[in-house]
Amino acid sequence: MPELRKDPVVGRWVIMATDRAKRPSDFAKERESRKGGPCVFCGGREADTPPEVLAYRDHGSSPNQPGWRVRGVPNKFPALRIEGPLGKRGAGLYDLMNGIGAHEVVIETPEHDRCMADMEPAEIEEVLWAYRDRVLDLGKDERFRYVIIFKNHGAEAGASLEHPHSQLIALPILPLSVQQELRGASGYFTLKERCIFCDIVAQESEDRRRVIFENDRYIATCPFAARFPYEILIIPKEHSSHFEYSEAADYHHLAHTLKATLGALKNALNDPPFNYIVHSAPLREAPNKHYHWHLEITPALTKVAGFEVGTGFYINPVPPENSAEQLRAAVEGVQSADLMQAI
Amino acid sequence: MPELRKDPVVGRWVIMATDRAKRPSDFAKERESRKGGPCVFCGGREADTPPEVLAYRDHGSSPNQPGWRVRGVPNKFPALRIEGPLGKRGAGLYDLMNGIGAHEVVIETPEHDRCMADMEPAEIEEVLWAYRDRVLDLGKDERFRYVIIFKNHGAEAGASLEHPHSQLIALPILPLSVQQELRGASGYFTLKERCIFCDIVAQESEDRRRVIFENDRYIATCPFAARFPYEILIIPKEHSSHFEYSEAADYHHLAHTLKATLGALKNALNDPPFNYIVHSAPLREAPNKHYHWHLEITPALTKVAGFEVGTGFYINPVPPENSAEQLRAAVEGVQSADLMQAI
Repeated sequence: MPELRKDPVVGRWVIMATDRAKRPSDFAKERESRKGGPCVFCGGREADTPPEVLAYRDHGSSPNQPGWRVRGVPNKFPALRIEGPLGKRGAGLYDLMNGIGAHEVVIETPEHDRCMADMEPAEIEEVLWAYRDRVLDLGKDERFRYVIIFKNHGAEAGASLEHPHSQLIALPILPLSVQQELRGASGYFTLKERCIFCDIVAQESEDRRRVIFENDRYIATCPFAARFPYEILIIPKEHSSHFEYSEAADYHHLAHTLKATLGALKNALNDPPFNYIVHSAPLREAPNKHYHWHLEITPALTKVAGFEVGTGFYINPVPPENSAEQLRAAVEGVQSADLMQAI
Repeated sequence: MPELRKDPVVGRWVIMATDRAKRPSDFAKERESRKGGPCVFCGGREADTPPEVLAYRDHGSSPNQPGWRVRGVPNKFPALRIEGPLGKRGAGLYDLMNGIGAHEVVIETPEHDRCMADMEPAEIEEVLWAYRDRVLDLGKDERFRYVIIFKNHGAEAGASLEHPHSQLIALPILPLSVQQELRGASGYFTLKERCIFCDIVAQESEDRRRVIFENDRYIATCPFAARFPYEILIIPKEHSSHFEYSEAADYHHLAHTLKATLGALKNALNDPPFNYIVHSAPLREAPNKHYHWHLEITPALTKVAGFEVGTGFYINPVPPENSAEQLRAAVEGVQSADLMQAI
């Protein structure tokens, strides 16, 4: 059984994935890349994954058979286990609990070589609906406090499979960065009686230098204190604390925003490895006025050295104004029949 | 002029190294490795670095000439500039200041192919003295609040030069992880009237499962909530808030501890890439009872994905008890005439 252990000084939780325990010699193998389809995520290989927990299918197709457009399955090698009690306990001054959680994969398309930047907005929209549906379903389990939604694209960004997919990890704890953001946003609200993210949207909309793309509902910018070259922040223009409480029109506009920004990244940087992560308020909480959900896209162009991991301190060789200028130009080249953009 | 910019939500400072500004095409080149000596850090190439700010030399040798054992020089491509005022200011809701700081290199040996794991403890001890002397010197500059001391070993850990070296970055701000540790340690002290790190030393000494090496003054363990396989924490056994306020005997014993642990890493994992970072209390502060300096060694065996960077949440496939067992065994193979070890 894996364990969740808490760093006693900074309060960071770590999954000790004991069932995956490795020997020193196993690490060399990981550096090899795994290339070329078809793979177990491809259409026609449904029997090679665990049974699906979600699928958007064409009429007349059956579960765990071809005919799906987006498909959610449990991770075959989950970092956490779904069954059992949390078992919160101490060990001297340390805190730990059982490694309870869910680890799922959203397969974004049956086609191996079709990355999100190449999908049509309507296809991306279905992936976003899949995130929403899985978060709402996982959120019914009261053991879970948070679901991390993320995507690793490219081996250098940690993707172990090429086939376009995202991951969801449901956790019984709040990740450290979520705690930090909630605390920061809450402190600002106490001081100003305004949401800090709403203020960021207002300032960036006015300033324009860091804006990459904008439509009626979202703005995509390179953040003022970006840690990485070409880092992108997508924020809803209207206040909203939870990704999963969004309206249908929100997912529609967000799909266009992702199409534009991921397309621009691909065009400007020759399909770079990247990660994106949804930052949202904790599960089942009522909508609040101080936290504002957003999506962070971080290209993996520079190596993250232990220096950065160890200090939380980054050196970014490309100012976000320069990154934004290049990405804004690259949005022009994004091919899409109907890209919805603010004028 | 580079800038220091603060993330308005979590308070993370980032260096915008504008003078190093890059175009998209520059990133591909970085993936090439630079191998093979001799290089500008080698003995005999002293004229190819900026003039030295520190050197431990044999009798009769002259500054910026051969005859040194350890040498400190300014970084030729510094992320921060030493000259000028801090210029703290706002830009709407954002905070920024001039990119003032120092960025130095400690060249650990004139020999290109001699890594720290292969040095004798007496040689490592001189490197530690160099850290101390530079921190004390940089700390005289009241603009600086913190000096990060770190080492990148191997290209995959971010080392752009092979020749054994460490880096020091003097900063006018406190890095986020230092803020977090100070807050955590201070909260624990308020609650318990004890140092949390002293409690960790006591518990680990008693438990033994995570101990790798110990002598009269230091204990090296794999931390209870290790983020990475084979992560190592070296802590002074007696309370001490500042690395640079240590006694001569401390540096002597720390050199032995580094020899044992880095030697064990090299033996057990075939010379893996790694980083280490010294975590110490802020510059010029009086010694305090709640913070306890320590050194973190993080092997770069697994890719740090955006997932981890974005969430501060880690999945470690090797429990620290297993890592410690293997490293403890590997300490036995470390060749040194006089390795001082507790019995």
